[in-house]
Order: sequence, then C-alpha cells, then structure tokens
Amino acid sequence: MMLIPAFTFRMSLLCVFWVFCALEPVCASRFFNLFSPDLSVQFNIQLTADGEIRYSVYADKKSLIKQGKMGFNLVGQGPLEKGFRWLSIDTSSVDERWEPQWGEERQLRKRCSRMVVHFEQTASGKRLDLECMVFNDGVGFRYHFPSSGRQEAFIVAEELTSFPLAGDHEAFWIPGDYDTNEYAYARTPLSQVHASQELWPHGIGFRSQISDSTVQTPLTMRTADGLWLSIHEAALVNYPAMQLDIDRGELILAAHLVPDAVGNKAYLRLGDRTPWRVLLIARRAPELLTNRIILHLNEDPAEGDFSWLKPGKYMGIWWEMHLGTRSWAGPRDEGDSLSLPHGATTGSMQRLIDFAAANGFTYLLAEGWNRGWEHGDGGWSERKFSFTEAYPDIDLPRISQYAQERGVGLMMHHETYGAVTDYERQLPAALDLMENLGYKGVKTGYVGRLVPRGEHHDGQWMVNHFLYQAQQTARRKFFLVSHESVRPTGLHRTYPNWFSSEAARGNEFNAWSAGNPPEHETILPFTRLLGGPMDYTPGIFPTHAAAGDSFALRRVHTTLCKQLALYVTLYSPLQMAAGNVEDYERHPGPFQFIREVPTDWDSTVVVDAVPGDYVFTARRQKDSADWYVGMITDELARKVTLRLDFLEPGRKYVARIYADAPDAHWQTRPMAYKITEQRVDARDALNIRLAPGGGCAISLRAAE
Amino acid sequence: MMLIPAFTFRMSLLCVFWVFCALEPVCASRFFNLFSPDLSVQFNIQLTADGEIRYSVYADKKSLIKQGKMGFNLVGQGPLEKGFRWLSIDTSSVDERWEPQWGEERQLRKRCSRMVVHFEQTASGKRLDLECMVFNDGVGFRYHFPSSGRQEAFIVAEELTSFPLAGDHEAFWIPGDYDTNEYAYARTPLSQVHASQELWPHGIGFRSQISDSTVQTPLTMRTADGLWLSIHEAALVNYPAMQLDIDRGELILAAHLVPDAVGNKAYLRLGDRTPWRVLLIARRAPELLTNRIILHLNEDPAEGDFSWLKPGKYMGIWWEMHLGTRSWAGPRDEGDSLSLPHGATTGSMQRLIDFAAANGFTYLLAEGWNRGWEHGDGGWSERKFSFTEAYPDIDLPRISQYAQERGVGLMMHHETYGAVTDYERQLPAALDLMENLGYKGVKTGYVGRLVPRGEHHDGQWMVNHFLYQAQQTARRKFFLVSHESVRPTGLHRTYPNWFSSEAARGNEFNAWSAGNPPEHETILPFTRLLGGPMDYTPGIFPTHAAAGDSFALRRVHTTLCKQLALYVTLYSPLQMAAGNVEDYERHPGPFQFIREVPTDWDSTVVVDAVPGDYVFTARRQKDSADWYVGMITDELARKVTLRLDFLEPGRKYVARIYADAPDAHWQTRPMAYKITEQRVDARDALNIRLAPGGGCAISLRAAE
Repeated sequence: MMLIPAFTFRMSLLCVFWVFCALEPVCASRFFNLFSPDLSVQFNIQLTADGEIRYSVYADKKSLIKQGKMGFNLVGQGPLEKGFRWLSIDTSSVDERWEPQWGEERQLRKRCSRMVVHFEQTASGKRLDLECMVFNDGVGFRYHFPSSGRQEAFIVAEELTSFPLAGDHEAFWIPGDYDTNEYAYARTPLSQVHASQELWPHGIGFRSQISDSTVQTPLTMRTADGLWLSIHEAALVNYPAMQLDIDRGELILAAHLVPDAVGNKAYLRLGDRTPWRVLLIARRAPELLTNRIILHLNEDPAEGDFSWLKPGKYMGIWWEMHLGTRSWAGPRDEGDSLSLPHGATTGSMQRLIDFAAANGFTYLLAEGWNRGWEHGDGGWSERKFSFTEAYPDIDLPRISQYAQERGVGLMMHHETYGAVTDYERQLPAALDLMENLGYKGVKTGYVGRLVPRGEHHDGQWMVNHFLYQAQQTARRKFFLVSHESVRPTGLHRTYPNWFSSEAARGNEFNAWSAGNPPEHETILPFTRLLGGPMDYTPGIFPTHAAAGDSFALRRVHTTLCKQLALYVTLYSPLQMAAGNVEDYERHPGPFQFIREVPTDWDSTVVVDAVPGDYVFTARRQKDSADWYVGMITDELARKVTLRLDFLEPGRKYVARIYADAPDAHWQTRPMAYKITEQRVDARDALNIRLAPGGGCAISLRAAE
Repeated sequence: MMLIPAFTFRMSLLCVFWVFCALEPVCASRFFNLFSPDLSVQFNIQLTADGEIRYSVYADKKSLIKQGKMGFNLVGQGPLEKGFRWLSIDTSSVDERWEPQWGEERQLRKRCSRMVVHFEQTASGKRLDLECMVFNDGVGFRYHFPSSGRQEAFIVAEELTSFPLAGDHEAFWIPGDYDTNEYAYARTPLSQVHASQELWPHGIGFRSQISDSTVQTPLTMRTADGLWLSIHEAALVNYPAMQLDIDRGELILAAHLVPDAVGNKAYLRLGDRTPWRVLLIARRAPELLTNRIILHLNEDPAEGDFSWLKPGKYMGIWWEMHLGTRSWAGPRDEGDSLSLPHGATTGSMQRLIDFAAANGFTYLLAEGWNRGWEHGDGGWSERKFSFTEAYPDIDLPRISQYAQERGVGLMMHHETYGAVTDYERQLPAALDLMENLGYKGVKTGYVGRLVPRGEHHDGQWMVNHFLYQAQQTARRKFFLVSHESVRPTGLHRTYPNWFSSEAARGNEFNAWSAGNPPEHETILPFTRLLGGPMDYTPGIFPTHAAAGDSFALRRVHTTLCKQLALYVTLYSPLQMAAGNVEDYERHPGPFQFIREVPTDWDSTVVVDAVPGDYVFTARRQKDSADWYVGMITDELARKVTLRLDFLEPGRKYVARIYADAPDAHWQTRPMAYKITEQRVDARDALNIRLAPGGGCAISLRAAE
C-alpha cells in the first residue's frame, strides 16, 4: 500500500493513498483509492482487463457501491466504454470556507480530497476525464470531455453510469417520470419498487412515467446497517436530469437520462462537463439534512452583485382559486359576467396589499392577472397567455404605486402552461413591464405538455431554459421561483436569485386531489429538499369543512400547528403565507408565528428526524440571537422531550410555543391549538405532544 | 339552372349561379356553382349522400379538378369528414384595386366571385366554413373553424384536401421534403414521378425526403389541352406547409402537411383559418407569370408604415467563401493564424463599401462577421453563434460609420445553423446592435437540423418563427431576407419588409455541387417564384476555369449575359450583385447593367416564356419611362425576334443590348459577350441570339 504509480501525478495531501498492483510494465496501476479527509470514506477507481472504468465506494469500511460502471454511448460513434488506459492523475485536497448569499447556515466549510483521472480510449484516441471529490459524508464525481481547441460537437445517446448497491435498502422513492415529480413518496425495499403502482392517488395533470422500475432522484435509502444514503446530482447544467433504472434482482441502479424530442439525451461539445453524480452518506438520519455536499459541488455566482436580493415571505391571490371559489380567468371586457368571480382585481389586490403591509410581508403575488386564462389550458397550442396584458379589471400601474407606497414588493406571475418558446419570445417585454412597474420577482409555472413539442420538463432543453430564465431575471435584479420545473441540484448557490422551485408535490395538492399523506412533509427534507429550497406554500389553516365537497378531504392534511412548523422544517429563503386572509384575521394567535418567522438563517440544528416519521429542526435567525423550532410528525402522535441545548449557554429566551391541543387530530380537530409562553435557557427541555398529523412551532426570542 | 335554394343566403352579383336539385325536402340543394367574373372558371361544391364535401373546378368548360375531398382528421376526436349538412351560404363579388408596397406592378386589380359556405357536422355539432374565391385565372379556398366565444384548442392530425386531376399532366416538380426545397426540378408526367430518383446530384446538406411519390408546391403542370396549372397555397400562417402525395395511378394529389416533432400537423383554435389552397390557371404559359391570385389572397399589412422600406441592390462578402478561397471563420484572438484568410475584416469591408458606394449599391452584406463559425456546424447543439460578438479583426462601429459616411446601408447576417430557439433568445440583443450601428436589414440562414429538435423547416413551428422574425424586424424598421426558410406564399404583401427568401436552389449551388442545370432559371419563375421573390443572388461572372478544381464545374452554368438577364427574369425587390469585385472591375461593360438595373417596377410584360425552355421578360422601372428586358434560355441556343411593342408608342428609347457573342456557350465560352447600343421605338423589333445556357439583357432608356 502507498506505492507510487509509474507515471505523472501530483500528490498533495497525506490522506490520498495510491494503491498499486505492479502487474503490468508501463501503465502498471490497475486501481487507485481516494480517501476522505477523515479516511472514513473511500472512492476506488480501477480499469478492468477490457479497459472498462469501474468505481466503488466504501464508508466506515462497509461497501456501498460495488464496481459501478462509467462511460457513455454516443450517437453515431463507437461506445465510450471499453479500451481505456490511464493517462495521468492529479490530486489535491480542498479545505475552504465560503458564505452563501442566503441559506441555512451563514458559513460553510468544504473539506474533501479531489482527484482528476485522465483516461484515453486507445483505439479511438478519445479522451475522458473523471473528476472525483470525496468528503467525510459522501462522494461526487463527474465526467469532462477534454478539448484541444475546436469545440467539436457530439451527442450522448446514453450515460452508462451505474450504482450497484451492497444491499436491498429501504428506499423512499417516487416513480420515474420525464415531466413531473409531483408524486407522493413510496417506501419499499429496492427489490419491491413498483413504480406504476398507484400508491397514493396522484392527481397530476400531465405525466410521462418511464417504467415500472424507474425512480427519481434524490433517492434516499437506509441500509440494514443503519446508514443513510441518498443518490442525486449536483450542478445540472446543459444536460438532462438523471433518473434511475432499478435492476430489482441485482440491486443495480443505472443512470436513465431524460430524452429529448427525438430520443437523444444530451448535445455536448468537447470541453463540456456533466453534472456531478453524488452519493450522500449519513450515519444518523438527521445528518442527511445538514449534508451540504451538493452545495459544495456547485460554483459561486459567475458574476453579478446580489446585494439587492432579499429573502422574505409573500402572500398571494392563490388559495381561493385552488379551492374553486374564485377564478384565475378574468373578463374580456370590463363588466363581462363570469361564472366564478375573478380572483385578481384592483380591489382584491389593494385589500391584500393593505393586509400584507400591516403584517410585515415582503412580497405579494397575484395569479390570474393576465389575459389567457379564459381559454382554458389551450391544449398543446403555442400562444396561451399574454405576459404583458392585464385583464380590464386590474389596474397594474395603480396597484404598483399602491404597493410601493406601503412597502410591499410585487411578485409577477407567469404561468406558461408549457408554451415555453412563446414565453421566451415574450420574456423581454414581460421583464420590461416588471421593471417599469417596480416588481421584485416572478413566479413561473410550466403546467402541462411543452412546446417545443416532444421535449420534457426534465430534458436538456428545459434544463437550459430554467437556467436561461434564472440568468435573464438576475440581469434585471428579479428573484425567480419556478413551479413544475426540474428538481434542484444546488444551483441556488450559483444563481442565488433563483430562490426556490416547487418540483415536488406541494401543499396545493390538498386542494384538488386526494392530497398529501401526513408523512409527506417528513420525507421532503430527506429527498427533494436535498437539492435545494422548495416553494411548498405552507401556512394554510385547515378551516374548511369536508361537507358537500366532491373531494372528501379538500384541505391540508395537517393540524394548524404543523402548518406553522413547516416554515422551519421545509427550508426556503422565500416562504409563502399561503392561506386566506380571512383565516389569518380570525386566528391572530397562530398567525403571529407566520408573521414573525424569518426565512434566512445563521445556523441550523436538526434535533432529530426520521423520514416518514418526524422532523424536528431548530434554526437561528440571520444576524440575530433568536431561534425558531419546527417539529412535525406523520399520522402518529408523538411525545417529545425537546432539549434546548442548541441555545446560547447562559442566555435567557422567551419561548412562545404553538402546540397541538390535546384533542387535536389532522382529520377530526385540525384547528385545535394551544399557545403558551415561558422563559427558558439552554439547560431546559420542553415536553411537546404532537397530534396525529400534527406539529409544533416555537419561537425563542433572546431575552436580553 | 339559376334556381334559388331553400335557405338563407345573400346573392349579390350576377355571375354567381346557384344550381339546385330539388330532391330533398328541407336542405334541398346538393350542389352549388360559383363562377368567375367572366364565367370561364367554375367552382362546384357538393355534399355526397354520406355528407362528405366534394369540390370540382372547371375552366373553359374543361374539368380540372374532379370531386376533390375536403375535411380533416383531428387528434383525439372523430374525423371532420362525413355527415355534414349545409347551414347557409354567403356570396359576394369583389372588384378592388390595390397598390403593393413594392412589386412587379404599381397597381393590382382583384376581381373575383366569393362565397362562404357554412357547414355543420350533424352528429358532432362541429361547424366548418369554406371560403372560396373564383378568379378568371384560378381559384382559392380555405377552411375556417368558427368559434362561438371560447377559443377551444384542437390538433389537426391530417388535412384531407385532395386534388383529383383530369389527366396525366406533365409536371415540373421537386421531391417532397420536410426540410429543404433546394432541389433541381424534374419534368415528368405525374404518373412518372419518382421523387427518390437522383435526377440531378443534389448537394444538399440536410434533407428529409418524404416518399417516392411526394412533391412540393408550387407544382406546375401542363395539360394535354395546353392549359397551364399550378397548385400552391397562399397566406401560410400558423400552419405547416402543404406538400402533395401523388396517387400515380388515379392521378390524385393529396395534401401532405409537414408534421411536427411528435407527428402532429397543426395546433389550432376555434376561430382559426387555414392557408388558402390555390389553383392557378393559364391559357398560355406566360400568363402564369403574371397571375397575381396568390397576392390577392393575402392581406394588406395589419399595421405599420413601411415608407422607410427601400428596395435595392446589395453586394456582399460571400462568393469567395463559397468558392473556398476565404473563410467565414475568423480568428479567436487578433493575430491567430488561420488555415484560410478570414473573409470579413475591417479592411475587406471598407474596400467593399468603397466599391459599393462608387457604383450606387444600396446595401452591403458581410457574412462571417460573428463568432461561432470557428466551431464548424456544431452538430445538433443549441448554441452555435453569437449574434452580437464580432471577430477581433472586425471593428463594427468603425465600419458602420464608414458605410454611413458613404451612403451604403449595412445588412446584418444571422446564420443560425438551425439553432432557432437560441437565435430567438439572442434576437433582442442582436436587433439592438443592428439599431445602434444603423443597419438596414438582415439576411438569415437556417442551414441544417433544427432546434427545437424534431421540428422541420416547413412545419407549423418554423412557419410561425419566420413570421415572428418578419414582425420583429418590421417593428425595428429592418428588412429581412431569409435563406433555408419555408417557400413563400404571398406573405410579402402583408409583411413587405420580408423582401425575399431563398427557399429554392440558388446560384450558390454552382459553387460546391454539380450546380444548377441551365434550364433551372427558366423553371423557377413558373414554380418557386409564384409564391414570392427569391434571393437567387445573380450576377456571378463565369470567369473561373475548371482546371485543378475538385468540382469539374465550380462556376455558374450560364453565360455572362444570362447572369445579367436574371436581374429581370427572376423578380426580387432586393437583388444581390453576387460576384467578386475583381470580376466587376475587370469587366466594366457588362457590370454597367448590374449597376443600372432597378429592383422595383411599375409594370411587367412577359413577352414569352415556357418553363424549362426560356423566359423573356420586360419591366418598366418604377416612376420612370425606362424599360429593362431579360431573356434567358436553357441549354439550347435560340434566335428570337423581340418586338418592342410594350414600349410607350411614339417615344424614342436608347437600347443598350448585352448579348451573348456568336461563339458564346455556357460550358466553353461563358464570358463571350457583345454590347451594342441603338435607338428604337415601339414599332421596332430586335433580333437576339441566345447562346446555349445564354441570355440577353437590354436597357431601354427613354430618350426624351
């Protein structure tokens, strides 16, 4: 062990070991190991006798990935799979601290071992580089296609990367789908994945399911040894999203890239890189929620000053439309009669601005302000919406002035219904309008089948569209929140104005489908949120009765206090207060937590968490000594002793506890809550009871 | 005959006859005839016993179209084909004069009979309207999908329109192809069409041929009776181009719409209309060249003042790149060495501006000014070119100022290599650059496979792109010339800034393929040019010798004088002087014609013409008494007595005749010419000899 191979490389840190078998004369080495800084995680790379690249991952000396494949099939060219030889290896160690524009922590530390392995396919002369980073809590690797000048184009037919797992892990998964990720999660051993099975009535408008054994990432798993793993990707740029085909017998996961309209996967040029393939490793479940490898594998912003960017909370004209009491569609001409009253009008927006201003909300959204909604979803047609023409019952300049005078930032809404090329055509004028009226950001939507026709939401073209949108809005100093977009891969580090995306089953599903099961929000942080913030739109008070409604459960499947706790457990720099104003006015006690809870943090402590069961999270407000706690449970009641040892020692805090009432229950008494206040310090513990489908929110204001 | 049917209609002109068979009680009429103003052309429409719509066309009492089908298959709905009943019919007569922004005539007269037949499909309740116009020289009809409010979307799977012909006409055709129309023409009876046969080595980079029996429109035919017919379409907006499947046994042509990426044809909404299906009829071949029905069936510009628009001629940095002596690609950094010298540089553009200014050219084009060419065609990748970044050896602001000081308008060049969505993203900035630098127009190119992937050059998405481009350029007061675009359908009436398109096999094919056969330019006016002006890029002097060249005939397949005559026979408001400056300097005699020939006309007389043989055209310059004549022949020499009776009687003219020398021949002595001058008047005739592949150009300047 620790022998030096016979060709050039740079060795720059002690914790990188080169394992060398002196069996062959020139390129003697058959495998190399790269260890994490604490030596607990090991990334092994080797060439088979056929010159195929294989990698393995070990943690704490246990095998996690065993002889995973690497390589590509290219369109019109031989496979980039066999016949490789080593050219050289560069290694280095990384230890750097960096500050995100906003986030769950003020400062992050990236500490890992890094290597770049340079391969050549002898017969074709093609080169392929593999870049690996090994952290104490996971690994990331990606491919480079080196260029020597001219950026020759090529087409990826298939990526061959595979993840052969060491056991039949219990997995939290949603079905593989090219166009949507709005499924509820299933939890089965990998060998028992049946993705076409209706585990929970989905209520999804448009989907393109892949196969019975394909699932999406982040795919989070628990090994028999109690390790927690999650496979995802980082920095998804100019490439399709990766889904995973499961070989249920062999327990091998294989990369399944989302195809384009003609069945190809990615159009690249020499000089390009793929996204990172990432394996997150946690010894305890809560550690998975503070694993920051995906952020570390993304880049800092390429350019631009983002000091103008302000995390915050927003209200919106929104939930009443989902409930079906108001309509997105407005009148063609002023005074036209409508079957449902129009949601967004000058009057309704002014009332909401007044309320938002009085309660300290940063932003305000109005859906259904623009022409196009009256035509339904427009089938698969190209032009569906105008992004510059308001309905005649909305006076945009007047509302804009009204909002500015009251210190509320307006948030534009752009639902495309999938007509993306038309949207891009309208975008310059739409952004001009936003700039002229002083808007602060935009929420986009991509419901339905896409134009360009045949493209998928998670394919390369759309991945590039979302980034284009992030860049275009950044240039004009707008923030962006995207719905029905590809799931995030840590790009909010590089594009901080892209605050959040939906890209999962949000709270809205509770309005018009079987809704979300009570365990749903306990799984999201372990899966979807590993990639980045989610616009889940919490804060809906379960005041609606089920009577007389065609959906037996047309309301959130939580207690009121769980809705409050979600502001802490589901991280986003931009949180919606998604409920109706009338509910907030009627219940000022619990509404106080929504008013007060911040959305930007100095530090985060996951007190305890198990996906599918519960999540208890504490966060310290940015530039403040105040803490906020969110505790949520699944359909089971729980009694929890919450130790407050995350608080600053010796300091006194006023804890305001928003707890489920003893008889609270998400189905029968969701509105039953109790608010208490007490002085506490770091030595204290609180006894909290969570109702079935319940939660608890706590504010801890530093007393002095 | 002349009975009145039993339901509502308005009868407003004498020449409309209603033929009525009183066989059924309520909706008694089984067919209707609409006659042209001079009664020579008859359009018959009827319902079969199954309620299918059938139409027939007669001219001079001869049957031309016999029981053509009408209707549609819609995606996810029953066919819109059978079970129709008449609802009502509106008729009117049209007689109006209008002036195009520019053209072959100053004023045009639209005279026709018009009817709209309202149908209902009884079982489905769906409505379909048919609008017909019958002219003395042809017919046009189109479908409306009536809306009663909400613009419900639907998808056209197939248009069922057919054209059953009365005989096995001789046809001038190019193979059906979704992506290119750059074929040389074949001439066979319809029953002998074999579209996959290599009639002329095509040299086309990217094509998507449809079937052995599919051809493109305009499809021009000669009947055994000596009538000339052409099937095409007018006002192709928001719909795919129509190609024609030939049933070679039954002699039925059927509409074949270009599909989109997923195989659908068109995405429409209630309220939409299809393009016009047009049958042009000429008793003599030359009359086909002055048939203006396609223009009449288009609309006037919807909005905008086009007084800024100026027809003219341009020169360009172009031909030397096609010849391979200079390169589109420039250096990455100043001083980089290149395998071929860069064509467009500050110096080369300044020299060309000097020459263009000295010779009265309106515009100047430089291809290869922008970054991206150095990467080759980029495969099928998305981002290929920058449309704002010039190579370092081109100082755009300096050139722009230089051109402005000398009164030469700069013309931008945007080659997309098919990456259209990226082009649309860059378009606002690209147009800003053009505006800031004072450019006058833009020439676009769409070589290769498209992004959006799976879309075709002639499909609905691209049709809409080309119109979008015409609108975007018009808004900024730029003219547009498009290459590799869908063939025109008279839309230059509605979008006059869209000066011309290529959309056929242009002169450039002579640089790098087997070239164009000598008959090619005699067929173009009878086919491609029926839809609108072409940017053929004439004026290339056949000075290059064949020796030492890998292409045996790497030069134009004409004599020099034919290149001159093309300026008159191939109409365009914007003509290129496409040859090299050195050739023009060396041959100032013939170059004088290129300098003088105008591009906008008060009137046009086609003295004689037969497709595939010869075209002799005379045109009077706009706002002038001067005439210009172009005469071209195919591979055969011809002796022609040209009567000058088109001239103003009693007026004297100085005729300057650019004729082939006696020994001229396109293959052996293409440069042999003779220029003579004589005084003539309308009673004179000129004896002209056209060499094989030759031509003759004449200017006739009014003497007083």
